[in-house]
Amino acid sequence: MAKAAILMGSKSDFGVVKPAVETLKKFGVETEVRVISAHRTPDEAHAFASSAKENGTEVIICAAGKAAHLGGVIAAYTTLPVIGLPVKTDMMGGLDSLLSIVQMPSGIPVATVGVNAGENAGLLAVQILALAHPELAEKLFLYKKQMAEKIASDDAALQEELKNL
Amino acid sequence: MAKAAILMGSKSDFGVVKPAVETLKKFGVETEVRVISAHRTPDEAHAFASSAKENGTEVIICAAGKAAHLGGVIAAYTTLPVIGLPVKTDMMGGLDSLLSIVQMPSGIPVATVGVNAGENAGLLAVQILALAHPELAEKLFLYKKQMAEKIASDDAALQEELKNL
Amino acid sequence: MAKAAILMGSKSDFGVVKPAVETLKKFGVETEVRVISAHRTPDEAHAFASSAKENGTEVIICAAGKAAHLGGVIAAYTTLPVIGLPVKTDMMGGLDSLLSIVQMPSGIPVATVGVNAGENAGLLAVQILALAHPELAEKLFLYKKQMAEKIASDDAALQEELKNL
Amino acid sequence: MAKAAILMGSKSDFGVVKPAVETLKKFGVETEVRVISAHRTPDEAHAFASSAKENGTEVIICAAGKAAHLGGVIAAYTTLPVIGLPVKTDMMGGLDSLLSIVQMPSGIPVATVGVNAGENAGLLAVQILALAHPELAEKLFLYKKQMAEKIASDDAALQEELKNL
Amino acid sequence: MAKAAILMGSKSDFGVVKPAVETLKKFGVETEVRVISAHRTPDEAHAFASSAKENGTEVIICAAGKAAHLGGVIAAYTTLPVIGLPVKTDMMGGLDSLLSIVQMPSGIPVATVGVNAGENAGLLAVQILALAHPELAEKLFLYKKQMAEKIASDDAALQEELKNL
Amino acid sequence: MAKAAILMGSKSDFGVVKPAVETLKKFGVETEVRVISAHRTPDEAHAFASSAKENGTEVIICAAGKAAHLGGVIAAYTTLPVIGLPVKTDMMGGLDSLLSIVQMPSGIPVATVGVNAGENAGLLAVQILALAHPELAEKLFLYKKQMAEKIASDDAALQEELKNL
Amino acid sequence: MAKAAILMGSKSDFGVVKPAVETLKKFGVETEVRVISAHRTPDEAHAFASSAKENGTEVIICAAGKAAHLGGVIAAYTTLPVIGLPVKTDMMGGLDSLLSIVQMPSGIPVATVGVNAGENAGLLAVQILALAHPELAEKLFLYKKQMAEKIASDDAALQEELKNL
Amino acid sequence: MAKAAILMGSKSDFGVVKPAVETLKKFGVETEVRVISAHRTPDEAHAFASSAKENGTEVIICAAGKAAHLGGVIAAYTTLPVIGLPVKTDMMGGLDSLLSIVQMPSGIPVATVGVNAGENAGLLAVQILALAHPELAEKLFLYKKQMAEKIASDDAALQEELKNL
Repeated sequence: MAKAAILMGSKSDFGVVKPAVETLKKFGVETEVRVISAHRTPDEAHAFASSAKENGTEVIICAAGKAAHLGGVIAAYTTLPVIGLPVKTDMMGGLDSLLSIVQMPSGIPVATVGVNAGENAGLLAVQILALAHPELAEKLFLYKKQMAEKIASDDAALQEELKNL
Repeated sequence: MAKAAILMGSKSDFGVVKPAVETLKKFGVETEVRVISAHRTPDEAHAFASSAKENGTEVIICAAGKAAHLGGVIAAYTTLPVIGLPVKTDMMGGLDSLLSIVQMPSGIPVATVGVNAGENAGLLAVQILALAHPELAEKLFLYKKQMAEKIASDDAALQEELKNL
Repeated sequence: MAKAAILMGSKSDFGVVKPAVETLKKFGVETEVRVISAHRTPDEAHAFASSAKENGTEVIICAAGKAAHLGGVIAAYTTLPVIGLPVKTDMMGGLDSLLSIVQMPSGIPVATVGVNAGENAGLLAVQILALAHPELAEKLFLYKKQMAEKIASDDAALQEELKNL
Repeated sequence: MAKAAILMGSKSDFGVVKPAVETLKKFGVETEVRVISAHRTPDEAHAFASSAKENGTEVIICAAGKAAHLGGVIAAYTTLPVIGLPVKTDMMGGLDSLLSIVQMPSGIPVATVGVNAGENAGLLAVQILALAHPELAEKLFLYKKQMAEKIASDDAALQEELKNL
Repeated sequence: MAKAAILMGSKSDFGVVKPAVETLKKFGVETEVRVISAHRTPDEAHAFASSAKENGTEVIICAAGKAAHLGGVIAAYTTLPVIGLPVKTDMMGGLDSLLSIVQMPSGIPVATVGVNAGENAGLLAVQILALAHPELAEKLFLYKKQMAEKIASDDAALQEELKNL
Repeated sequence: MAKAAILMGSKSDFGVVKPAVETLKKFGVETEVRVISAHRTPDEAHAFASSAKENGTEVIICAAGKAAHLGGVIAAYTTLPVIGLPVKTDMMGGLDSLLSIVQMPSGIPVATVGVNAGENAGLLAVQILALAHPELAEKLFLYKKQMAEKIASDDAALQEELKNL
Repeated sequence: MAKAAILMGSKSDFGVVKPAVETLKKFGVETEVRVISAHRTPDEAHAFASSAKENGTEVIICAAGKAAHLGGVIAAYTTLPVIGLPVKTDMMGGLDSLLSIVQMPSGIPVATVGVNAGENAGLLAVQILALAHPELAEKLFLYKKQMAEKIASDDAALQEELKNL
Repeated sequence: MAKAAILMGSKSDFGVVKPAVETLKKFGVETEVRVISAHRTPDEAHAFASSAKENGTEVIICAAGKAAHLGGVIAAYTTLPVIGLPVKTDMMGGLDSLLSIVQMPSGIPVATVGVNAGENAGLLAVQILALAHPELAEKLFLYKKQMAEKIASDDAALQEELKNL
């Protein structure tokens, strides 16, 4: 069974993380969810990242805001792909979080999704896991189809509403 | 053998793409490199993305600048993980490219690396491929060790230089 | 009769699109309004854009937010003028939407209006349509006159209010 | 014959304007090119805009930088479509020019293209003119085809170069 | 008697303009307040600016938001000092208004104050008027003293509050 | 005779200040030019500002870059109008200088011109001085006329060049 | 006993300053809290900074917003370390405050913390004071331990909540 | 003897760090300079930070660019004051480095100086060290006096140059 981990720097980030958890569950991915801070519990971060691969984790999502170092700190201790999920802040809508995560120096990439894009963090994890778990690729194909159907039905509903405009 | 593809929206982006190509080659990943534009050759983009998985491609890097739609357009047509590589521009150092790539709507993630971060795009692809190709994980571990040694030797060299300051 | 189309990437963008619809109707322009997503329904986007001209559409407004690719994707498949309407987001007031739309690469322009500027998107469409539909030019001239009168009456009302300040 | 005008706020902007001129000429559009400043020759701007339509002009491109008011000032005096071409500056790569042009208040749209995007300004003018001049639509279709061929030949050239990498 | 004018591009800007009006009244400056739009009533703007000096106006405050051209357009038609008051918008807190006003090209300065800084616009007008109306300088001196006293009394109040903390 | 002062925080800013000096000289304004730093020579700044009015100075231009406090510090000690001239930096083209100068708190305005807009700083000083020195108003009127003539001759020159294009 | 001072430019900043006061009190640092404005009470600022060291103050926190000059003005008159605390504004979430404080010219540093980061301003003051007051270092060590425990207990609580998800 | 450490994430940052080294040496502070990367040598960073206090280090300067995590990672493992020195990048002049360093979450402050402000990083370290090493306070007082004299002599030189203008 595919296995992912989601870390957040503060429990208050759970609202942003939740769609990632739900997405991973919907796809049947075993998901560990943890509050681990790069700055307040650095030893725990080190311990988690160093042992993640041995523990069967295949991809790690790290959500953090402001000077968001969690993704980089985790990536420093593992060769697993790390997905960075920037949390919205008051500073230009989270540009601080985004730049702190995406602008990693050469050698230590963090796969960054949009600000507060919890669902996309989860989906990207599934896409990555699908390389080694082909059943996920099929589910992703279905998911894409459902998205298209949702847009089509939104379009149909709009046509009805426009008649009454 | 692991297989990646690298697309660029314009041949003039090859300088940014080259470190990604070299990194993938260094890790022994079979790599297809193409000039395909989301706007100027949309049919080619469609065709490439739709058939990438059947052709054995496992991860796709898309480099583009300014209103950089290539990653999103490719991601629309495949369930493979797509890595977005923003190309530096004159607009705030490439903030236009970065935001055009990373701020994808829910449902279609693009795994974004830093502006002009070609090497990191390549490394992220390797980290992703390593899930299904365990030999790459070992090479990544070695790569990390060599990076640490490089920093240590830089530090040693600096100590020598400081003596003469 | 002049004919325009308005596409939005998500039905939730209709609030921003509505003033464009109303403006086009006020000028008597036949207007098709659709929910079509560049990323979630790329085939529909392709089909719409490829056939728009044959269907008599003369100008297309595309509203989208964040990594707003809809305008560019439609413009890739048609020679009709495409108007980009950036939707406000939490990222610097919609700067992501704006840059994703306006910074198009050479060869594929998108005529961009301000963030959430639905009325201006509609008016620009009318101005463009007026080239081939001279009756619209007359209506635009009247519209401009009414705007000036509105400002003049606002000014008069202010003078009254100031007396009581 | 289709007729366009291109205004620039300062003769030093001609480098940015030139690709627009060349594009319009390539498409066989009669093009008037003028140095007219919204701030230094406001009467000339007024006179030009007020009489443009009677003079047969069908679309006006306005290039300006910094607090770039030319497009808005011209648009205030005409119902013709006005295309705004922001000139690059030292302030965040021309963000001042871009925002001064695109963020027009309700009622007076300016169709904005990217910073320094002279060719796109010209192409957008052609797309607009094509509504009333169908021969231009055919040329645009051909132009699009040539762009696609150029990308394809760039791609072919790259494949050759990659063999020698 | 000193005489100032305050123009706003839209009556909805009056909330930002009001502190300027009140400040000028407090200093006994005769103040004309008008709704005049650079884009919607360009002729009125032209007429006002061209005759302002002859009408005895000595300084003009122009409040506008987004692509805020009012100050520049007025300054184009007069040699009087023009004060630009940028109105807050959703685009980065009014950065669009600020840059559209302050980044004027060489030859046509606009004396810009902070975003929504109505009181400062009024005070700057008074400081300028004081050059020709010495009684205003004395009032400004007193105003400065009262500001200092206000801070001192705030400080004293804080000391009391801190005792109870 | 009208009298202005120009302060710069560092002698290295003289290149930006020079057009202001030249403009004031061209208009026949007596001009004192000083290197005074808000941070490195705060006592000198205090002394200068406190005595400027008694010394006959009527307007003060303050040029500074980065965390540009000079204008605010001078304005704290005088009731004369203070013009802030932001010096370009590497930080977003001088946005740091601009915001540090223009965003003054209520009560202490600084009349800000564009980044590196030395000539405009000088012209604004002349416009302000013209209130009490009517001969300057006439010169400004002439200056405006010459600017218009320069644009017209640029336009004529362009027409010639276009013939040979 | 260790001694710190906290200055704010306006009493309305006390909400941001309060966590700094509370943090310093929790660590047993004697703390003077004052409303002193760089612009409205410059003499008081001068007097305070010039005598701070003789009065036994060892570190000074300065909170201010917008064109935030307080830190720089205080630092100009003392050799004590000055901590700058930027107050959030409407301008890009306080980027104006941040840049006005952190981008100090060479020779006059201000130790800047994040926007509205009152607690961090207080903690940084304690870290600095701990150099000369070793008992504070012990308390800081304990504080760090408690933060780690808080994260660990948040993590434990999350595990419980996840069971019920 | 006072003791400081300066860490840089990459040897290529030494140009920015050098003025800090020179400043500390000029003040007679024992200074250890190291290349240690938060991401490439995380164990070394951990080891250094954990033992810095026992080794007699009293303040640590951390220079890093882009997603600059070094300061935060070091601060996570020590109670010593950590000074963050953002290195200029192509992304908006180093805004990425600045925000990644200054916007630290509550509990772990990093005392941030301006982008590339190596000298200020060194001076801030000296100001902090002066609390426990009073001889440094005297040197700082002298340093301030010399800065003032430098400005005064620059001013005198300018007066000479102006005579010949």
